[in-house]
Amino acid sequence: MNTTCYINGQFLPYPDASLHINDLGLQRGYSIFDYFIEVEGGIPFFDDYLDRFYTSADRLNMKVPIGRKALKEKIAELLHQNKLGTSGIKLLLTGGYSEDLYSPSSPNFMILNLPVLHQPGDFGEGVKLILLDYQRHIPEVKTTFYLPSIALFPRLKEYRAIEVLYHHNGLISETTRANIFLVKNNRLITPSPGILKGITRKHVLNTAKDLLASEEREVRLEELWEADEIFITGTSKHVMPVIEIEGRQIGKGKPGEWTRRISEAFENYFSNF
Amino acid sequence: MNTTCYINGQFLPYPDASLHINDLGLQRGYSIFDYFIEVEGGIPFFDDYLDRFYTSADRLNMKVPIGRKALKEKIAELLHQNKLGTSGIKLLLTGGYSEDLYSPSSPNFMILNLPVLHQPGDFGEGVKLILLDYQRHIPEVKTTFYLPSIALFPRLKEYRAIEVLYHHNGLISETTRANIFLVKNNRLITPSPGILKGITRKHVLNTAKDLLASEEREVRLEELWEADEIFITGTSKHVMPVIEIEGRQIGKGKPGEWTRRISEAFENYFSNF
Repeated sequence: MNTTCYINGQFLPYPDASLHINDLGLQRGYSIFDYFIEVEGGIPFFDDYLDRFYTSADRLNMKVPIGRKALKEKIAELLHQNKLGTSGIKLLLTGGYSEDLYSPSSPNFMILNLPVLHQPGDFGEGVKLILLDYQRHIPEVKTTFYLPSIALFPRLKEYRAIEVLYHHNGLISETTRANIFLVKNNRLITPSPGILKGITRKHVLNTAKDLLASEEREVRLEELWEADEIFITGTSKHVMPVIEIEGRQIGKGKPGEWTRRISEAFENYFSNF
Repeated sequence: MNTTCYINGQFLPYPDASLHINDLGLQRGYSIFDYFIEVEGGIPFFDDYLDRFYTSADRLNMKVPIGRKALKEKIAELLHQNKLGTSGIKLLLTGGYSEDLYSPSSPNFMILNLPVLHQPGDFGEGVKLILLDYQRHIPEVKTTFYLPSIALFPRLKEYRAIEVLYHHNGLISETTRANIFLVKNNRLITPSPGILKGITRKHVLNTAKDLLASEEREVRLEELWEADEIFITGTSKHVMPVIEIEGRQIGKGKPGEWTRRISEAFENYFSNF
């Protein structure tokens, strides 16, 4: 992937992009990121993503070393150079190089622009999840700590699952890279608080409110097994039906009718954004 | 710090040591480490540390790309080259370079050998802690995720505290980089399970059993305020008295008598190891 990326003020070829090993993102996981997708040269919900990125940094006492206007210009320059048309854009901010491998210093900041592996909005046949007792720390912040899920790769393969659904103290929160929605008795239900507030989640809720009533509230683990339909939402997934969790069938075991209607409404909204 | 380090089979100068930014330790926090100290050319409790490192890797479905005997040889070679006398040795294993920035590949493995900033075993005047509601995921594994504590640097400075003490669901577990012990009514109490099993913790328990009765059990947050004495233990700290937590005085507000006796016993044991 020989695209151009941006690190600490410089544009350079992605294959040449490295950090010294005393970076605190590597040594201590002190790092945040965000990820969004270029669609035919535009970036849907661009400001939502940037809001979240700057807020994440603030919340962890990190400082993004570039203002929003300049950041937008750098991203535009990257997209112009790489000309991928549809692509992923990842912002990554770390605690910087650290002599004692512990204390933060001037942050390292990079923008990556890479091809997307599959087209968002592909509704598909329904996906499978597995469960993990885990609660993300400061869940409204997008940290790089995906170890709990990545360590489960063998189990994911065994169940042919694509994501891990987190639960803790009897409540579900979110999956590795997506938010979760349940449909029960023609009502849409999604967990809050204790989650990363997904940008797609926000716009799906916004779209769905013309279709059915919705609730943002604590959701018990057992509600999964009583749900009529379940789907997940994310930047790369849009609306994606869930048909099985931890080997147990959800609803009728195929994508539900409400899920299909919400997906269609969201895709329509998205294409007009 | 122009020492030699070891990365993926090669010895090279530390200033030249870098990883491509698609390393999964950096991008997804999929990484473990361990840390131990060379004392005058020897490594106390060497096998304890290596046991923990290999076990951590197993537990997360990672593979250390070097066997124990070869690893010991590489470490000996590093110490011989760097000749620091007393130094820190850090092993770091990541999920490797990842094209999709998510799926693990061949691991990246490094050994760093760096000066220690202060001499272990300096008992001192007592240190301060602050509190955080947090439970480490798979606590028996030494992951690199220190973000919850590092994000609190401003609060640490405000309280002149050196570590963050974690509690969750009413129970205390451990501090950022140390285990915690309470003394109450001439009994030694330390939390278990839900903690990283520190090597120093193990040997302190071993040493202290000739001095007083001890309990490894769940410890409630409120027990902090009723303790006669509190101390923390760690590879860089040995036995270190705690005199204040979150601005509240512990015991008499100075290092306790049991803490001093246990520290002396441990230092004696350590110097004869």
